[in-house]
Amino acid sequence: MDLLLKTNGFFISKKEDRFRVELEKDGKIIKTDIPATKIERIILSNNGTITTGAISLAIENNIPIIFLKWEEPTGMIWHCRIGKTAKTRRSQLKFSESINGIRFASNWIKQKMGNQLNYLKDLKKNHNHKGDFDTVIKNINNYIMELTQYTNNIDDKLPHREIKDTIIGIEGIASKYYFEGINHALPKNYKFKERSRRPARDKFNALLNYGYGMLYPMVEKCLIVAGLDPYVGFIHADNYNKTTLVYDVIEMYRAHIDRGVVNFINSKKVKGSHFNILENGISLSDDGKGEFAPYIKDIVFGKEFYFKNKKYLLPDFIQKECYEIAKSIRGKIL
Amino acid sequence: MDLLLKTNGFFISKKEDRFRVELEKDGKIIKTDIPATKIERIILSNNGTITTGAISLAIENNIPIIFLKWEEPTGMIWHCRIGKTAKTRRSQLKFSESINGIRFASNWIKQKMGNQLNYLKDLKKNHNHKGDFDTVIKNINNYIMELTQYTNNIDDKLPHREIKDTIIGIEGIASKYYFEGINHALPKNYKFKERSRRPARDKFNALLNYGYGMLYPMVEKCLIVAGLDPYVGFIHADNYNKTTLVYDVIEMYRAHIDRGVVNFINSKKVKGSHFNILENGISLSDDGKGEFAPYIKDIVFGKEFYFKNKKYLLPDFIQKECYEIAKSIRGKIL
Repeated sequence: MDLLLKTNGFFISKKEDRFRVELEKDGKIIKTDIPATKIERIILSNNGTITTGAISLAIENNIPIIFLKWEEPTGMIWHCRIGKTAKTRRSQLKFSESINGIRFASNWIKQKMGNQLNYLKDLKKNHNHKGDFDTVIKNINNYIMELTQYTNNIDDKLPHREIKDTIIGIEGIASKYYFEGINHALPKNYKFKERSRRPARDKFNALLNYGYGMLYPMVEKCLIVAGLDPYVGFIHADNYNKTTLVYDVIEMYRAHIDRGVVNFINSKKVKGSHFNILENGISLSDDGKGEFAPYIKDIVFGKEFYFKNKKYLLPDFIQKECYEIAKSIRGKIL
Repeated sequence: MDLLLKTNGFFISKKEDRFRVELEKDGKIIKTDIPATKIERIILSNNGTITTGAISLAIENNIPIIFLKWEEPTGMIWHCRIGKTAKTRRSQLKFSESINGIRFASNWIKQKMGNQLNYLKDLKKNHNHKGDFDTVIKNINNYIMELTQYTNNIDDKLPHREIKDTIIGIEGIASKYYFEGINHALPKNYKFKERSRRPARDKFNALLNYGYGMLYPMVEKCLIVAGLDPYVGFIHADNYNKTTLVYDVIEMYRAHIDRGVVNFINSKKVKGSHFNILENGISLSDDGKGEFAPYIKDIVFGKEFYFKNKKYLLPDFIQKECYEIAKSIRGKIL
């Protein structure tokens, strides 16, 4: 189990081979002792105190301690002695530079395209939308097949950058068709020309970018908690100081945000006051964020997904998938 | 500067952008505030308490926190955001697998052989020793030249394991001559046939192994404090779960122990009760350790060495050199 402390003022110490956690509740100190053998990770959010004895106990038992601040990861205690996290990161670094690593990560892109396809099929079933979904569905299907064929027959003499660019290229064209399909499902005044980022050129893109922005730190946290290095990606550009693994992995979850944005718009919750008109684009106003963020939290992050026959809310589901990715990567090399 | 806390019962908290350190002394609490900008590393030995606020402050300022237990490193807080330590370790991993990395680390071996040569020259000057030092000095000189020539012209099509084995091989033959020379400097009843490890076959080797055993965790600590991964070596065998970088780097400092052992023997401090006779070898007795360990601590670890025109005791000198190694490695790749 994970020992997750979110309450301010916790105190963690060592009591023989157990962690003693002290929390204040209604003016009383509540003490809980948990055997080190039962704990997989310690995750500390908010403010509290920990003794070096407890840190040593964690280290001896190969239990990583992860520090979060406002739910975003800031640091982690690693073991100098070789442990799971060290093994995961080393394997990740080596595997990310191999052709098999590219192949492995291209499955995330395929998963993304599959999600896009499924969403378009759902939209097609909805009789309110009159657009030509069949063509976009057929096209995306073709690009999934093209990607599969390409990754199955990668010429490993090619520079890796070129292989990665081809994969991103195929995904990019499919995405264009996908957003064409999404456009069919939007009311007239929310239709958009194309994807635009900094800044968004229209209301749809402003909402989409904000939604992705909410997903982003969540994926980063899940990767770090799983022991992965968010800076070492497989497919996205090897930019120093960019969390390229987040860009890779987030692909699988973007469609949930897309669906959330379309539903938010179609639910007629959007008002003019939700947007700021910039000199060269459009962004969400504080009003807009105040309405949209809770919607995403409730509707998108509150949705349940199956992982190994058990249901989890989206954030926990992403965490489970990241553990699984770390496990696979550890198994690959070293 | 490094914030090094060795006293039991320290308490570290955050006070704006400063670390507040509280220590008990003669029943009084002494508080010291140190600006985060002045601290390079926090090193915590012994037992104390730290708040998550102080940990966050360290993380925000890219200050690693290192935990020691009995002076041996156990864990370290790394930053998830890319920092010096992450950069050092990634560079180390990549560089260690390159031909330039092998070349880089072969300088440590050359340094070792140079130290051996210097020590033999010192012994030669000492008129009490009558052995043939000239031949061993000439031979070691030749092997240093051979190693230089080999590393300058490495055929990088060869498997790296083969290149590393050649380097270790040249060093091994030179070492045989070196210990032949050392033998000349020992009294009759301490002369030895060859290097023997587990167990030592004679008193000289028993002392030597114990001395190296004292040096070992010191080098490991210095590497970790410098942000290097002790498990990722350059020349010594790529054994999983072996601190191969320690084996690589320790080479440069072995001659200090050798010198200590020879002087310890020649100072006539050694007694029969200092050794245990095992079934298949010889080891130091508790008596022997009680006499020899303080000698090494005083005489060997108490010796001063120049680093960039400033004098440091051996442990601090090794630390400075490890910082320098980390800096070079960071500069190589990424």
